[in-house]
Amino acid sequence: MKNILALKNQNVPFMSVENLLKLVSKIGIEKSPRFASHSPEGVIELMPISDGNNFSFKYVNGHPNNTKRGLQTVTAFGVLADVDSGYPILLTEMTVLTALRTAANSALVAKYLAPTTATTLALIGNGAQSEFQALAFKAIVGITKVKLFDTHTGASEKCYQNLQNSGLIVEICSTAEAAIEGAHIITTCTADKCNATILTNEMIGNGVHINAIGWDCPGKTELDKNLLLRGDVFIEFEPQTRIEGDIQQLDVNSPVTEFHSVITGHKRGRVSAQQLTIFDGVGFALEDFSALRYLHNMMQQYSDHQMLDLLPKPADPRDLFGLFGDVNANLLSKAS
Amino acid sequence: MKNILALKNQNVPFMSVENLLKLVSKIGIEKSPRFASHSPEGVIELMPISDGNNFSFKYVNGHPNNTKRGLQTVTAFGVLADVDSGYPILLTEMTVLTALRTAANSALVAKYLAPTTATTLALIGNGAQSEFQALAFKAIVGITKVKLFDTHTGASEKCYQNLQNSGLIVEICSTAEAAIEGAHIITTCTADKCNATILTNEMIGNGVHINAIGWDCPGKTELDKNLLLRGDVFIEFEPQTRIEGDIQQLDVNSPVTEFHSVITGHKRGRVSAQQLTIFDGVGFALEDFSALRYLHNMMQQYSDHQMLDLLPKPADPRDLFGLFGDVNANLLSKAS
Repeated sequence: MKNILALKNQNVPFMSVENLLKLVSKIGIEKSPRFASHSPEGVIELMPISDGNNFSFKYVNGHPNNTKRGLQTVTAFGVLADVDSGYPILLTEMTVLTALRTAANSALVAKYLAPTTATTLALIGNGAQSEFQALAFKAIVGITKVKLFDTHTGASEKCYQNLQNSGLIVEICSTAEAAIEGAHIITTCTADKCNATILTNEMIGNGVHINAIGWDCPGKTELDKNLLLRGDVFIEFEPQTRIEGDIQQLDVNSPVTEFHSVITGHKRGRVSAQQLTIFDGVGFALEDFSALRYLHNMMQQYSDHQMLDLLPKPADPRDLFGLFGDVNANLLSKAS
Repeated sequence: MKNILALKNQNVPFMSVENLLKLVSKIGIEKSPRFASHSPEGVIELMPISDGNNFSFKYVNGHPNNTKRGLQTVTAFGVLADVDSGYPILLTEMTVLTALRTAANSALVAKYLAPTTATTLALIGNGAQSEFQALAFKAIVGITKVKLFDTHTGASEKCYQNLQNSGLIVEICSTAEAAIEGAHIITTCTADKCNATILTNEMIGNGVHINAIGWDCPGKTELDKNLLLRGDVFIEFEPQTRIEGDIQQLDVNSPVTEFHSVITGHKRGRVSAQQLTIFDGVGFALEDFSALRYLHNMMQQYSDHQMLDLLPKPADPRDLFGLFGDVNANLLSKAS
């Protein structure tokens, strides 16, 4: 029943892209199965989740060819709602928010799985997610050097420029092999449906952590099957990752570890310096749910936002029709 | 590829409640499986659908106890998107829009199924949907008289007042039986989970059409099982109605007719004056999809709307991070 009066009389808070960017600038970077509609060009997904108190969903598209026509490959927005009343309490852009939570999640996983002495990150794929990855690994894992590779040189140059004042040593490499050399952590973050295998088994030595977070879907993977068989694979949520992740190439009974059990101490993460650990990340609704709740808390304190006239607010809830009276008394005569 | 340039540089059109009310006042009234999250208080549903060109979803809640605390039982909003790019092209309030499409759909069905000489409509349940029902049946079916009944007298009085200038003869009745007497069409539109049976078999004579559109869900129905067995039942979409509709009380092989096949002439609608026809309406995503596409067309021509900064618009689509440059050049130093 909390906040019911507030729900009744106010519009729905809306976080625009501009206000989210401002909020992130203020607070800094440090701090369930889904519905999918596939088309030849890409996919639109709704990712709903609830903990019984709040409900959230994210709308997200993945269209690898969008970049060629000046559009984003991935855009997203989402809603946080109050389960008790069913009323939405936040509508927000989630393109930037997803980039932030993806990078934060990658770095959190690496904090548990990467070699403790890791200082160098290879970034294979230097698109929209790359700078967020670099900064998250600097903040959370303590990375000091980033090696960039992308099949589009312009993408690497863009990333290089954006990281000039980050305090990171940044190097552009001309091949994936060159980028990987000496790296303790390797992030693959590619979107093209055609590039089926970004990393082969032969390219990768022992004692590294692979953070494979590129856009996955049934039929689209980034890692060589033999690499997956060699390493210890960590995932977010098995039912989803078996369908969408790189492990779709493996037998359904292949050994995998859900990462949450490493945090809680029920399963072991990295057990030796020579171990090859692989995070097969696909992104799942719980991460967005947490990001939305965090944003909802932060925006009260730090951020501008607009209020949207998204829900009717009649004085008598049964009198929805009466709202027309405020707008145009002629409606009834038009209906006559 | 149509409209891609427009998508790239513009914000997302947003139809507020106020602007939708204005639009409806201007143009007048005449003209797939879902995801559900149930809680003790109600349900939140996402209803997605696509025809390959457009994708839409509706967020809708159903919380029967909301009325007691001044909130709407049902609120909704929705999105229409372009499948080719994955970009949303309309975000709109859908509480009023759903009320309009529900009434329009009820009247369309009755136009095919009700006795051709029907002039009197009984409205059992006089909540937020009732006036929309009355006006739609006047416009599309030619109803001239409406008889009201609600367990809450105030609801009937509200409906009566709102219809004073509608050109309809309106009468408040003290029992459901009194409202039904002489009515050719009976609309049941109730939301309370407790009132399990609004119409019993004994209450209903022959030669009428029942339009049962109240909030249904597994375990919640409006019509007596024997009434359903006696009448000819028409539905929207069998897989959904078997779970949610009044026919959840019947054997899964009980005879029903999907209404679209009556419009297309593949199945017969009303075949005799004495026939009892029943529309077991639950509302499905295709109706919202059509309403959203209609609204998207109408708003270009008739309506004010706002433009929302919902999607990032970087000059280089790969340079999402570069957007922070416009907001706060200190982000990188904060991350350091």
